[in-house]
Amino acid sequence: MIFPSDSVGFVTPAKLKFDELLPLASGATLDGFELMVETYGELNASRSNAVLVCHALSGHHHVAGYYKDQMRSEGWWDNLIGPGRPLDTRKFFVIGLNNLGGCHGSTGPRSVNPATKRPWGSEFPVVTVNDWVNAQHLLADRLGIDSFAAVIGGSLGGMQALQWSINFPERVRNVLAIAAAPKLSAENIGFNEVARQAIMTDPEFHGGNFYAHNTIPQRGLRLSRMLGHLTYLSDDLMGEKFGRELTDESGDEYQFGFDVEFEVENYLRHQGDKFAGHFDANTYLLMTKALDYFDPARPFGGDLEDAFRKAKANFFIAAFTSDWRFSPKRSKEIVRALVANRINVSYAEIESSAGHDSFLLPIPRYHALLSNVFSRISV
Amino acid sequence: MIFPSDSVGFVTPAKLKFDELLPLASGATLDGFELMVETYGELNASRSNAVLVCHALSGHHHVAGYYKDQMRSEGWWDNLIGPGRPLDTRKFFVIGLNNLGGCHGSTGPRSVNPATKRPWGSEFPVVTVNDWVNAQHLLADRLGIDSFAAVIGGSLGGMQALQWSINFPERVRNVLAIAAAPKLSAENIGFNEVARQAIMTDPEFHGGNFYAHNTIPQRGLRLSRMLGHLTYLSDDLMGEKFGRELTDESGDEYQFGFDVEFEVENYLRHQGDKFAGHFDANTYLLMTKALDYFDPARPFGGDLEDAFRKAKANFFIAAFTSDWRFSPKRSKEIVRALVANRINVSYAEIESSAGHDSFLLPIPRYHALLSNVFSRISV
Repeated sequence: MIFPSDSVGFVTPAKLKFDELLPLASGATLDGFELMVETYGELNASRSNAVLVCHALSGHHHVAGYYKDQMRSEGWWDNLIGPGRPLDTRKFFVIGLNNLGGCHGSTGPRSVNPATKRPWGSEFPVVTVNDWVNAQHLLADRLGIDSFAAVIGGSLGGMQALQWSINFPERVRNVLAIAAAPKLSAENIGFNEVARQAIMTDPEFHGGNFYAHNTIPQRGLRLSRMLGHLTYLSDDLMGEKFGRELTDESGDEYQFGFDVEFEVENYLRHQGDKFAGHFDANTYLLMTKALDYFDPARPFGGDLEDAFRKAKANFFIAAFTSDWRFSPKRSKEIVRALVANRINVSYAEIESSAGHDSFLLPIPRYHALLSNVFSRISV
Repeated sequence: MIFPSDSVGFVTPAKLKFDELLPLASGATLDGFELMVETYGELNASRSNAVLVCHALSGHHHVAGYYKDQMRSEGWWDNLIGPGRPLDTRKFFVIGLNNLGGCHGSTGPRSVNPATKRPWGSEFPVVTVNDWVNAQHLLADRLGIDSFAAVIGGSLGGMQALQWSINFPERVRNVLAIAAAPKLSAENIGFNEVARQAIMTDPEFHGGNFYAHNTIPQRGLRLSRMLGHLTYLSDDLMGEKFGRELTDESGDEYQFGFDVEFEVENYLRHQGDKFAGHFDANTYLLMTKALDYFDPARPFGGDLEDAFRKAKANFFIAAFTSDWRFSPKRSKEIVRALVANRINVSYAEIESSAGHDSFLLPIPRYHALLSNVFSRISV
């Protein structure tokens, strides 16, 4: 395999074991846990060049590079990271991890509950953005990182970056929160709830303990992903991409039946099937709930300005014009709260027809802005 | 029961039997059919004062008034129709019907297929807006109505009104198409497809012949309706109505579980349950497909201007600012095609935070406009 010269190339994940007790927001406590981690670049002698990449709903630790002997194994934010890319691995030591509750190797519903010797399933405690940040904080300790040069994320990942600046103001120098919001709206929660109900009412869900029944709630997961995709894209992009085109099999004529017919149906079914084949249903539920619960202003009587009072990082906030899930309006709420605290913040509203998923794309202006932000960070 | 003085009061539906052969767009032919119909006001001697009200996805013939001995039986567009209301029954004879394929008494999947003596179920042919307009045309003949004073509808109902002006230009003098679009976008089709897949992959669907199994695909219908509701409302309205409020049962604290917790979840589940208890799953599938297929420009090489070439009606087109399902942009496409044909059209963009469902609400400016349009129609 030949890589572009600015790729990080082949990478290998590692599983880190933590013996610490981790008290969670729910009141439950994890008696030790494991995190799947991947790193790119080298930690410098002063350990000042580390950048933490936080993942969104369906993400994981494999952010950049490729796995040996595995086709199509590119990391989910590969276009961002590498020698010469915006998050330049010649300068930075980049860390990706799979969050607690995930299904890519970190402790989560698929893991064995030491107390019962069976998979946690629905017994896995509900985790929050706060809990993740606390676990990431232990990871920083483990790696000897006193202060992150930056914490970056898009969507739910951006929420973790924001929370870092509130919980551990001394330990993060720059926060990049992209396509995020300071809390979900009723409509946002509504879409998550429909997805959850699709999974939880699937007869194969078995109250979350489908592992014991040797099955998965495939129908529910598939519907959740179809719906998710619809909301991550935009009407315009879907218009450009699919319009009202019929599939090749359908020819030029309406079929007057319920088989797949329009290209957009084909695309959504395909995305749903692909996802349902590998993602864990309990993880999906947990991730949506972490989104719903995220509300850093809540402990401050709902005052977001107050929530950022102790934040010290420099902030880069970005949003995309066609993102209707977390629109620019929502990013501006964050910016206003930061400005009110006289915190150093830059905001970019980036033209894109690709909707919420824009944050994953190498849009030239967006990547130029990120390059600029990262080039100004001293390590 | 005491009615407001501008209510049509108690009403009674009627089932009309048609023995005509009705060839459908799909190539199938119905060998006779029945339509449930309701009327308000009196047909005048010249039979020139009839207004046809076409229903949307989940509507039916009971448009206005109340049923005796039935609680909460108000018609779905009652606020529009009555003596002194915008569609004034002292002047007009108003007709509501349940379309073919419906589940409120007209011939549809729940009806007995004369050929098999069993419910049609999934064997009921796919019906289109064109098919409905053809059936409505036979209804007009039956009632001796040569020309409708107006055909009015919102959403899918508006599409039928538009189709009337194209198929039977001599038989409709005014068309009122509200919150409609000249065809669905890829995103629109996508939402319909998720709803269909929710129903069709419900194990209780049994390929559409759930009647024989004495069950209904309740989970799928419930999900479809939850999703529908989300897209009929707007982010702003849901923010005003629910925000991030927790239910009374939840108190002030997060529950860290998957029971209903936010008010918006409560609302959506309730709407879903209510709908799943009475609506027919096969009808839901048929209605979404009629939406997807609607594209009056299609037989004209995609040229909407051409499609309206023979239209003779006056048009009133209206859209609502917060409607993201069929946004004002989509209504303007209709207006442009009409203007290009030098057809008499007025267009109103109405301020409302209530999303697509606005067309059902008695918004003062909206109702004032409708009053004005109807008052100018000579009968």
